Amino acid sequence: MIAQRLAIIGLGLIGGSLARALRNAGAVAQISGYDPDPSRRADAQRLCVIDRVYDQPAAAVRDADVVVLSVPVLNTADALVECLPACKLDVIVTDVGSTKQSVLDDVQRVCGKLPPWFVAAHPIAGTEKSGIANSVLDLFRRHRVIVTPHEAQDPNALAVITRMWQAVGARVVEMDARQHDEIFAATSHLPHLIAYSYVDMLARLDEKHQIFSNAGGGFRDFTRIASSSPQMWHDVVKANADSVADLLDQQIGELQQIRELIRAKRWDDIKALFERARAARERYLAQIE
Amino acid sequence: MIAQRLAIIGLGLIGGSLARALRNAGAVAQISGYDPDPSRRADAQRLCVIDRVYDQPAAAVRDADVVVLSVPVLNTADALVECLPACKLDVIVTDVGSTKQSVLDDVQRVCGKLPPWFVAAHPIAGTEKSGIANSVLDLFRRHRVIVTPHEAQDPNALAVITRMWQAVGARVVEMDARQHDEIFAATSHLPHLIAYSYVDMLARLDEKHQIFSNAGGGFRDFTRIASSSPQMWHDVVKANADSVADLLDQQIGELQQIRELIRAKRWDDIKALFERARAARERYLAQIE
Repeated sequence: MIAQRLAIIGLGLIGGSLARALRNAGAVAQISGYDPDPSRRADAQRLCVIDRVYDQPAAAVRDADVVVLSVPVLNTADALVECLPACKLDVIVTDVGSTKQSVLDDVQRVCGKLPPWFVAAHPIAGTEKSGIANSVLDLFRRHRVIVTPHEAQDPNALAVITRMWQAVGARVVEMDARQHDEIFAATSHLPHLIAYSYVDMLARLDEKHQIFSNAGGGFRDFTRIASSSPQMWHDVVKANADSVADLLDQQIGELQQIRELIRAKRWDDIKALFERARAARERYLAQIE
Repeated sequence: MIAQRLAIIGLGLIGGSLARALRNAGAVAQISGYDPDPSRRADAQRLCVIDRVYDQPAAAVRDADVVVLSVPVLNTADALVECLPACKLDVIVTDVGSTKQSVLDDVQRVCGKLPPWFVAAHPIAGTEKSGIANSVLDLFRRHRVIVTPHEAQDPNALAVITRMWQAVGARVVEMDARQHDEIFAATSHLPHLIAYSYVDMLARLDEKHQIFSNAGGGFRDFTRIASSSPQMWHDVVKANADSVADLLDQQIGELQQIRELIRAKRWDDIKALFERARAARERYLAQIE
C-alpha cells in the first residue's frame, strides 16, 4: 500500500489506466477522480475504475495523500491552482506530462518556488487513443517512467511516487528535466509532428487519387501516432518548442540532403543511408528486447 | 489448381510467403525456385516450401507454366533475360515489384515490345523482415494485389495471375501503372524515405544522448519500416525517382510551414493541423476496417 487515498485529476487514457493498475495491485485504498468533461466523468463511473468521481477538483483532492495531475501538459499549472487550496498539508503531488522543464517552471510560478512535495514524472507509455474509455490495465507494465527530481525535492515524496509506478509494473529512471526534454523531442515529439504533417498532406492529395484505399501495413504503423490527441500534442510542442524546432530544422536538412542525392542520382549514397538507418534500428531493437 | 508447375525466381519474404500460401491452397502441383544467394537456397530447402531448388534460374523455370519474378525491382530485367531462353513457349511471367511503370519499361526493353504473357503485379503486403526464413503463410490473406494490365496484355495471362493471388486470399485490383506509381510514392515510398532519414539522424544524436534507450511504442511503430531491406528500397526510390522526389519536395515544404508556425507561435494553427490529420486518419481507418 503506497497511500490510503489517491486522487487523479484528469480522467484520460493515462489517468484511467493508472487507476485500473493501482487498484489491481492493491496499492491504494481509495481512488477519487475529477475531469472537467462530464462524459469522461460518466465513463469513469460506468467503468468503476474510480471509487468516487467529483465534478470539482477541490472535492476530489480533499483528504488525498497523493494527487496525480493527469492533464494536457499546459493545464498543469491551472490544475494545481484549483487543487492546492483543498489539499492536505502533507500531500504529495505528481504529474504525467510529456515535457518536464515546462512543468517544473509552471509549478514554480504557481508556488513561488519549487515545492518539496511536487514530483515531476513522465510514464513512457500510451496508445494513440484518448480518454478513460480506452484505458487499459497493463499500460505501464514493463514500461519506463522518467522522474526528474529538482533541487528542493523531498526524498520521501520521490520515494512514494517511485513506489507508485513500481507497483503498476513500471521501471523508474531518474533524469535531468532538460535532458529529458531534449531526448523526448527527438524520440517522440518530432515523430508526432512528422506523422501529423505527412497525413495532413496526403489528405489533400487524396482528393485527386485513391491514396488512403491503397495504403498498406507500413503506412498504418508509420501514421499511428497521427491519431493521437491534438490537444495533448499541441501542448507538448508549445511546452518544448525550442528543442522541437531545433530538431525539426535538422530533419528538414536531412530530407533536403536526400532530395539532393536523388537529384544527383547518387543511388549508392542513398542505399548507404538506408543501411546505416537499418543497422541503427537493429541496435535499438537489441537494446529494448 | 491454377498451374501444374510454378517457378519462383528470388526466394525472399514475398517469394517464400507466396510459395507457402500456394502450396497450402493446393493451387499448384509443383513449385521450383532459384535465388543467387546460397544461404537463401539452403533456407528454402530446409523449410521445404520449395519443391525443387536450383542454382541456375534457367533450370528453375524449365517446364514452368507460371514464372514469378520476386526480385528487387531493378533486377527484373536481368532476371527475365536469364529465364526467358529456358521458358516454355506458352509461359506466363509476372512480378511482385513495388513500382510498376519501370518494370513495364524494363520488360519492353528486354523483349523489344510489351509481351502479352507478362503480367505486372504488386502485392500490398510485407513486413520489415527480409528473406525466405521470415516468410509467413498468411502474408497475403485479405491484402490487396494491384495488377497493371498493359495494352498488349493477354486476358488469359491476366486471369491466371488474378486467380493465383485470389487462391492465397488476396483481393486483386486493376490500375494504370503510372497511377499506381504516384499513389504508392505517397503511401509507401515517401514514408520509407522519411523513416530511414529520421532514424539515421537519431543515430548520430544517440552518441551524445541516450536517445534509443528512451524511445517508446510510438517510436517503435513509426520507425518499423526503417528496418526494411536497403537494397529493395534503394531500387524502389531509383525506379520511381520522379514521383518520390516530387512528394519529398512537398513534404519538406509542409515541415517548413510547421517550422514557421512554431517560430510565429501560431499554436492554434498547429492544433488545427493536428486535428485535420487525425480526422483524415480516422477516415482512412474507417475505410480499411
